[in-house]
Amino acid sequence: MNTKRIEKVIAGMHGLGISQLLVSSPASVFYLTGRWIQPGERMLAFLVKDNGECCLYANRLFALRGNTDVPLVEFDDTEDCVAVLSESLSDGKIGIDKFWPSQFTIRLMEQRRGIVPVVGSSAVDNARLCKDEDEIRRMMESSRKNDETIEAVIAGLRPGMSETEGADLYAREAAARGASGMSFDPLICYGSNCAEPHHSSDRVTTLKTGDSVIIDVGLVWQDYCSDMTRTVFLGEPTDEQKRVYELVQKANEAGKAAVYPGVPVREVDRAARKVIEDAGYGKYFIHRTGHGIGLECHEYPDVSETGTEICRPGMCFSVEPGIYLPGKFGVRIEDLVCVTEDGAQVLNSVSRELRRIE
Amino acid sequence: MNTKRIEKVIAGMHGLGISQLLVSSPASVFYLTGRWIQPGERMLAFLVKDNGECCLYANRLFALRGNTDVPLVEFDDTEDCVAVLSESLSDGKIGIDKFWPSQFTIRLMEQRRGIVPVVGSSAVDNARLCKDEDEIRRMMESSRKNDETIEAVIAGLRPGMSETEGADLYAREAAARGASGMSFDPLICYGSNCAEPHHSSDRVTTLKTGDSVIIDVGLVWQDYCSDMTRTVFLGEPTDEQKRVYELVQKANEAGKAAVYPGVPVREVDRAARKVIEDAGYGKYFIHRTGHGIGLECHEYPDVSETGTEICRPGMCFSVEPGIYLPGKFGVRIEDLVCVTEDGAQVLNSVSRELRRIE
Repeated sequence: MNTKRIEKVIAGMHGLGISQLLVSSPASVFYLTGRWIQPGERMLAFLVKDNGECCLYANRLFALRGNTDVPLVEFDDTEDCVAVLSESLSDGKIGIDKFWPSQFTIRLMEQRRGIVPVVGSSAVDNARLCKDEDEIRRMMESSRKNDETIEAVIAGLRPGMSETEGADLYAREAAARGASGMSFDPLICYGSNCAEPHHSSDRVTTLKTGDSVIIDVGLVWQDYCSDMTRTVFLGEPTDEQKRVYELVQKANEAGKAAVYPGVPVREVDRAARKVIEDAGYGKYFIHRTGHGIGLECHEYPDVSETGTEICRPGMCFSVEPGIYLPGKFGVRIEDLVCVTEDGAQVLNSVSRELRRIE
Repeated sequence: MNTKRIEKVIAGMHGLGISQLLVSSPASVFYLTGRWIQPGERMLAFLVKDNGECCLYANRLFALRGNTDVPLVEFDDTEDCVAVLSESLSDGKIGIDKFWPSQFTIRLMEQRRGIVPVVGSSAVDNARLCKDEDEIRRMMESSRKNDETIEAVIAGLRPGMSETEGADLYAREAAARGASGMSFDPLICYGSNCAEPHHSSDRVTTLKTGDSVIIDVGLVWQDYCSDMTRTVFLGEPTDEQKRVYELVQKANEAGKAAVYPGVPVREVDRAARKVIEDAGYGKYFIHRTGHGIGLECHEYPDVSETGTEICRPGMCFSVEPGIYLPGKFGVRIEDLVCVTEDGAQVLNSVSRELRRIE
């Protein structure tokens, strides 16, 4: 159990005016208890009270007894898990995880008329926003391994290879470096597929001369996610490909340069977007500039035109501008940054210079 | 919009004493509207009223306008989606999907004090339990393609192949037969890994002589899932492997033979389990006999020792007994069945005779 993190959560609970909170998202439960539990359809709740008392409510099936230092109440499928939980709750307001399945909230209210549920997950989400020293160390190492792995993939790409063969190559190379999994399905795409940011690697598209190649990949190391993108070219890029590449490279640099404690994240988005807009490609940059990352690949903050979060030391997020020319090609360059006391540390070190492969 | 299915749902709503129901599980929304929508963090709700009025509430991002015949109300990220939905609701009881994220239920209650949420998804789950003619046709074709694919995998297995290479082979062969996806990650496992029913295919275990090979796979065809398991042996099986195989084969036959309209599904579990228990292997059959299947790989009914559902024509579920000898090997044989007017139709036709590969 991580009492320092629980203190941060309790501070957030005070802000919400709640004295009891049910945490249920697996990543948030892990963040506070050190245990990953995938509850599936079953109830999972970590109760935090503002006096510091905590208790984990979990099905016996998850075999936590003896495997955790947090106070534990177990139940099995024949018991009314909500009634078991309800015994520890006080009447009045209770913070509920935004994603807790409604069946539990509804049954709780049916059993306890005095309970008033409010959405309370921001108390944990905000605590998770700024990574502590141990988390930053893991984030750095996860990205270092991702750097190594992407270099191996770039070295292994060959004409005629399908997108999924490229993705499988990444998965094998990541596993060989000790990754426990992928942050998301590895995305390797070629040519006009690069112009669709939501394309998934397919089995039919094969690598050919003249293609841009987007490699958007991340691995999980000691529970923390990495995520980076590089774009390379098979053969000599055209003048248009070079021009677009340089623009995206500049936008990536401008975004990272804007990261500073006290700056709203929308200014990071603005800085990257301005480079692309000023060159007349604004309508081809069709997504936000970045997203927070940590135990999950997508966390707070939302680095977009409307992102109001203020950069604070320990925040980790992606800076990933792109230009997508429908039917032709696409370029995206993504790095992770961690806000420091006096700027930002970039977690990736793979070259961003235009690179051609053979 | 499928009015016949909506009528079944309304009948279920009467049973629950509710006149309005919010359907939100993507499979259930698809079942009623013909549209698959993965809402992610965004709100999705299909409102069914007991007078037959329906309306789909969805984010504009999902681009449904002009692409659906159901009455549609759209909103975007700047709007209060719950307030938009709330306008169409009446005070009093409202059925809520068991998995709807609590944030929406809580915000709805905060805005509308007169609303009393109750868990209402069983009205749709029960409607989905018995497949209609069109669904059964798709289930049959999905399983026929799965039969073909598993034969290709058995023919393609070679000594030295890793489990994930086997799984990739299945994925390629399924895609080549027109599958739109997998029902679940293909599970191919060898030797002692077969003794762990929750093992996932790994990259390090390779196929060697003397191994049992469990192939548990399913594909999606026209939105419907297939799911089957065969166990084969590399080289000549030992006497123990033969004995266990024959027992599981008999248990699979006994389970299927017990399927008859009017029979509680626990009797199907009992029939399969009895064969294994009578031979003294009861403690090595460590899971339920089967699960319902359709738009999702795991649906109602739960074919277990406590399953109370009564077999009715159109119900589709798996019969998949297994014996798992820790550290040694495992055998599972799984078929899908569809309950008919006078028994059951088995959807798989791949041989269940003991098979050795070279």
